[in-house]
Amino acid sequence: MSIAAHPPARIGDRLEDVDTPALIVDLDAFEHNLDRMAALLAPTGARLRAHAKTHKCAVIARQQIARGAVGQCCQKVGEAEALAWGGVPDILVSNEVVGRAKLLRLASLNRLARVGVCVDDPAQVDAIEAAAAEIGVRIETLVEIDVGAARCGVPAGEGAVPLARRIAASKHLTFGGLQAYHGSAQHYRTHEERRAAIGKATDATAASVEALKRAGLACRIVGGAGTGTFEFEAASGVYNEIQAGSYVFMDADYGRNLDSAGQPISTFRQSLFVLATVMSAPAKDRAVLDAGHKAVAVDSGLPLVWGQHGLNADIAFVGASDEHGKLKLGPDAPRLGLGEKVKLVPGHCDPTVNLHDWYVGVRAGRVEQLWPITARGAMR
Amino acid sequence: MSIAAHPPARIGDRLEDVDTPALIVDLDAFEHNLDRMAALLAPTGARLRAHAKTHKCAVIARQQIARGAVGQCCQKVGEAEALAWGGVPDILVSNEVVGRAKLLRLASLNRLARVGVCVDDPAQVDAIEAAAAEIGVRIETLVEIDVGAARCGVPAGEGAVPLARRIAASKHLTFGGLQAYHGSAQHYRTHEERRAAIGKATDATAASVEALKRAGLACRIVGGAGTGTFEFEAASGVYNEIQAGSYVFMDADYGRNLDSAGQPISTFRQSLFVLATVMSAPAKDRAVLDAGHKAVAVDSGLPLVWGQHGLNADIAFVGASDEHGKLKLGPDAPRLGLGEKVKLVPGHCDPTVNLHDWYVGVRAGRVEQLWPITARGAMR
Repeated sequence: MSIAAHPPARIGDRLEDVDTPALIVDLDAFEHNLDRMAALLAPTGARLRAHAKTHKCAVIARQQIARGAVGQCCQKVGEAEALAWGGVPDILVSNEVVGRAKLLRLASLNRLARVGVCVDDPAQVDAIEAAAAEIGVRIETLVEIDVGAARCGVPAGEGAVPLARRIAASKHLTFGGLQAYHGSAQHYRTHEERRAAIGKATDATAASVEALKRAGLACRIVGGAGTGTFEFEAASGVYNEIQAGSYVFMDADYGRNLDSAGQPISTFRQSLFVLATVMSAPAKDRAVLDAGHKAVAVDSGLPLVWGQHGLNADIAFVGASDEHGKLKLGPDAPRLGLGEKVKLVPGHCDPTVNLHDWYVGVRAGRVEQLWPITARGAMR
Repeated sequence: MSIAAHPPARIGDRLEDVDTPALIVDLDAFEHNLDRMAALLAPTGARLRAHAKTHKCAVIARQQIARGAVGQCCQKVGEAEALAWGGVPDILVSNEVVGRAKLLRLASLNRLARVGVCVDDPAQVDAIEAAAAEIGVRIETLVEIDVGAARCGVPAGEGAVPLARRIAASKHLTFGGLQAYHGSAQHYRTHEERRAAIGKATDATAASVEALKRAGLACRIVGGAGTGTFEFEAASGVYNEIQAGSYVFMDADYGRNLDSAGQPISTFRQSLFVLATVMSAPAKDRAVLDAGHKAVAVDSGLPLVWGQHGLNADIAFVGASDEHGKLKLGPDAPRLGLGEKVKLVPGHCDPTVNLHDWYVGVRAGRVEQLWPITARGAMR
């Protein structure tokens, strides 16, 4: 709806003059993250197919591609439309798509860009074939295998072969390979837990690749991984596409992952914030922000408060109503005044982005970029 | 963004042909709820000023007003704009509004509709006066008192008097009364807990009204209450405006409130659902829906599954990813097939509505209405 779409700032505004709540991107930290991922993947030979469910923005997708990403993945046809319409040429819907209306949209989009899709059921293969035939296009189709997340996907190993054969035998489909993502492993807190889970996922994926090879079916794409585990998949020699998304922004939940020395991981910098304003300061130890859970998602925990150079441990975000965020000020925190701006680190970046229509890109305290979140709400 | 704004259905479609995820309103249940609230409030003399933060839709606001509601309240200037632009003549921003840009918008909107606002700090009174003077309008301004929620608001009783005097002495402001909402009490599970909390809130509010009266200040509005407690405030003889919002839709969280006999409250019917499609059915006891926490809010718990005539206890929604909803089927549940539609009862209606751009109004299995959620995302 266009009413919500007015940007909260103008180019050149000072950060403190941005209207709130607003979604702020620290452009230096953001570009550091893009560069860092490209540098980490380069020696492994694994390609980056960054996940657009995080950013929902073709402007960001194209910056990833400019640094070597092969393309994007996403979860919904509507997201793929926003990306293709925004100039992204190579997209994988890393998810099942069910229903004739959506499959016709997916097929038609293949006239503008390469847009692949995943299946875990023979009925889906036939439905995608029918849509591709009706529009007259060829659709690259991957088999999703369950590598430990117990969500979608056929069993790994031989389980992938019948579906892959059915795809390969379909006149308008190309067998594209395997989707092998272990979602829950991204958030296992210790390095060892993540390493062990992805070790198993990699074994299951390798067995599937081998079974397909014996059946004469080659995998152009063996895709998976996220920000929590991508270093394991990239080094595996089995995965060749990395689907990390959150690394561009990071969030409080990823901030709780630990490295092999038991320390918080510092590979990427926090670049995404929700800027909020103190709208009530009724007690010495309390301030109320104009940002509640309609401005910052709470599915993975409450946001944290950011200080000048990192997390501010003296102020706790203790409660989110729809449009109120309640802060508890510790004994060492200076009292917050009416109108003061506070930067929040979202608990979970992806659904927080989905609440906003604009990124406000800031560098050196000034608004430098305004990018539309064109796939916001594209859930179909 | 217009990309997301295509409605998921056409008028006349059968419910099972609606594209998913979609926000469904059972129009019979919805109209029952509107009528029921009007009937319950009529004998009390309390006016309904329904909360638009729930529905974010002027089309629904006007249906409430047609049944006797005096107007609407909302939390943000952006919501007030969507309502005023959609023909709502009487609006109260039941919240503090801080910052010159927002206050100028609030003032300017007073040329189109009566749009009041709340304060809990003298600096805000002066800022609102300045904006009203700059635009040349008069703004009705209420004092928010803290009646137990420990969020915004000055202390009740004498605490309201200095602010009310300051408002009354401001050239472009009218003192409008008291905002006295006890948010957390809405969700206390037992009748007795809610009764006790609102008893205290009513005493505090009455003391404030009396203190203001002694100071020569009359309250046109004494507002508060929500769907969980409105019967107490309406019967109090102290509150004269009821700000219930969720009653139009209801949700799983309100479904956990109990009446005085310890039974779930049945005053209102569940009218809001997220319609989802099974996109993967990889195991006998598992199905995966195309609706995750970007389609149904999880801040107040996971959604429930709706059956033919009420909750379906044989199917549990056990996990929400961004775009996946995992169902666990009990031993008595028939296996769900690919493409089957499932109706979910959101855990919390307000933030679920905020994820969608359209209501799909359904009666007798057919799409009868499509209403735009014009204040979706209007967080500023």
